[in-house]
Amino acid sequence: MRYFNPHALKKLLYAVLERNGVCEDACFHVSEAVVQASLRGVDSHGINLFPHYYTVLKAGRINASPRFTLVRTAPSTIIFDADHGFGHHAGAVAMQAAVDAAKKNGVGAVSVKHSSHFGAAAYYALSAARQGCLGLCFTNTNDSVLAYNATKPFFGTNPVCLAAPMAEEDPLTLDMATSVISMNAVRNCLRASAFLAPGQAYDADGKETRDPAAARCLGPVGGYKGYGLGMVVELLCGMLSGGPVGPEIIPVGERLDTPRCLSHFFTAVDITRFQDPNAFAQRLQDVADSVRSLPRVDADVPVMIPGDPEKRTFRQRIVSGIPVDDVLYRALSDIDPAFAGASAEAG
Amino acid sequence: MRYFNPHALKKLLYAVLERNGVCEDACFHVSEAVVQASLRGVDSHGINLFPHYYTVLKAGRINASPRFTLVRTAPSTIIFDADHGFGHHAGAVAMQAAVDAAKKNGVGAVSVKHSSHFGAAAYYALSAARQGCLGLCFTNTNDSVLAYNATKPFFGTNPVCLAAPMAEEDPLTLDMATSVISMNAVRNCLRASAFLAPGQAYDADGKETRDPAAARCLGPVGGYKGYGLGMVVELLCGMLSGGPVGPEIIPVGERLDTPRCLSHFFTAVDITRFQDPNAFAQRLQDVADSVRSLPRVDADVPVMIPGDPEKRTFRQRIVSGIPVDDVLYRALSDIDPAFAGASAEAG
Repeated sequence: MRYFNPHALKKLLYAVLERNGVCEDACFHVSEAVVQASLRGVDSHGINLFPHYYTVLKAGRINASPRFTLVRTAPSTIIFDADHGFGHHAGAVAMQAAVDAAKKNGVGAVSVKHSSHFGAAAYYALSAARQGCLGLCFTNTNDSVLAYNATKPFFGTNPVCLAAPMAEEDPLTLDMATSVISMNAVRNCLRASAFLAPGQAYDADGKETRDPAAARCLGPVGGYKGYGLGMVVELLCGMLSGGPVGPEIIPVGERLDTPRCLSHFFTAVDITRFQDPNAFAQRLQDVADSVRSLPRVDADVPVMIPGDPEKRTFRQRIVSGIPVDDVLYRALSDIDPAFAGASAEAG
Repeated sequence: MRYFNPHALKKLLYAVLERNGVCEDACFHVSEAVVQASLRGVDSHGINLFPHYYTVLKAGRINASPRFTLVRTAPSTIIFDADHGFGHHAGAVAMQAAVDAAKKNGVGAVSVKHSSHFGAAAYYALSAARQGCLGLCFTNTNDSVLAYNATKPFFGTNPVCLAAPMAEEDPLTLDMATSVISMNAVRNCLRASAFLAPGQAYDADGKETRDPAAARCLGPVGGYKGYGLGMVVELLCGMLSGGPVGPEIIPVGERLDTPRCLSHFFTAVDITRFQDPNAFAQRLQDVADSVRSLPRVDADVPVMIPGDPEKRTFRQRIVSGIPVDDVLYRALSDIDPAFAGASAEAG
């Protein structure tokens, strides 16, 4: 295992993208979002995905210099065409448009179409929370979660994400797939030669499997409730934007030269329209601290609120660096030999 | 088991409330919401709760003729003080305010405080969907769901609800507690002398129990994800409104003379700002029909979308009537002997 300095890694990612014709804003947001996800321990959505992003950029799926179109349809609503650019770039611009609308009109809601994989949803929600808003963010993806009572998937892992400012620490963040685990987590399980837990994945016949190599789709979190939430996310994304939904979306690893036309939905709520923002942040801090002080089932396992595991990993990795295994290291070095100089091997 | 004609039942409920000084609008919304929940088969939130509503009205928890205060703080945001009236009344007025704001400004968001139990959330979301909006609705309640890794509950069953219009049938509705089951379902289990399923409930020491009499709190749906969603709902409700949260809220069956000060959050999104509304409703219809046509695990169990079980029960009960067991029948007859004349015993 090697460890990368996050700042050095971000610069390298930026340089690779820039050299491949990616516009400045996209270079910034892709490298920033990828490194943030890895620092927060969201390894399924961090630097592990960069070789894939590079591949689909070169293959033509991603438009390196998109022309975004934003149309305001009412004081609080915006329709956004992302022109097949990087989802990280589109997402950042869309969430900022939502925040700007919220600051003026209380709420901002932005429907994005013709986008691509945007990494970890927390990147956008956190940005809104750091500007005094509740940030909410959703995306669709291709059919990957078993439909309830069916033998096949229909909706994707369609995550739900919210962030809110806290008085004495980084914003609270809930960022969860509506499946039990993500497809990237299945791939990581396969790489680690490990077994899946019961209910996490299903095979080609819709039967539960613990073998990551046999997994064809994922279990919805909490059974029919997670399945229902996944459909609601699709409703906010592909159905509101008019883009493709579930089975109409190209799977992430297929037809790499073709845009996936993912849809996202971003909402910002200006807290000042409901509460004194400092009182709100202090109240959330107090509630979080009360929850964390509850008696524990296991004395060694802390009672946590959403985002606490990510904050803990961030505090470690900002010091130790971002871990990169051999497979990823070779993939990054193949993209640019400069990656080799930026890592330190674990002692 | 007896069966009540829904229209006759609604009139009886209205009359009981009116005779006890409840204002006209509250009579309308309480009776309408209760009967709608029972028709849709949501027995945990329908007529079963009416004796409780009557008790807390007489005890003084509920203000029979509240003076609502609505303050618009931005084009899309409203702060609403419900003055301890019926939650059904406050909820209906709040959702209409959200719809009106959405029609003007694209989105409407209404934060409600000083409210009470509002029954099934679908009542409000459906109303928004029938007016061409996406309707979203959330409420807090007292500490009743085990906090993750803790031996005690902190957040309530805090439901998430969304409804959206469909072209050829009633709106799609997702209305789900963020617990595995509701506390009312535990009470119904106790009445039926049945066992709980694993993971549904926990005892006073935070240990899993299958005995409904020993149950003190509920399991979060999908483990830490449902727990996180429950906290997010509290954030939208009690924390945004400035009302009490989780353990600060009086449990439903205690101190019946004291207002619970529940908080709700209502959002409406005007679909026309994103899509042609007829195209949207047809698209959702087509997607729903595609999902329902997926191959089944069990040929006798249909593949469903959220709200399908409720639609099926509605179609039955609008004909057969609303079932009322002996315990409830006696409770209703104690409130008003006129209930006896309105039922038909099952042959």
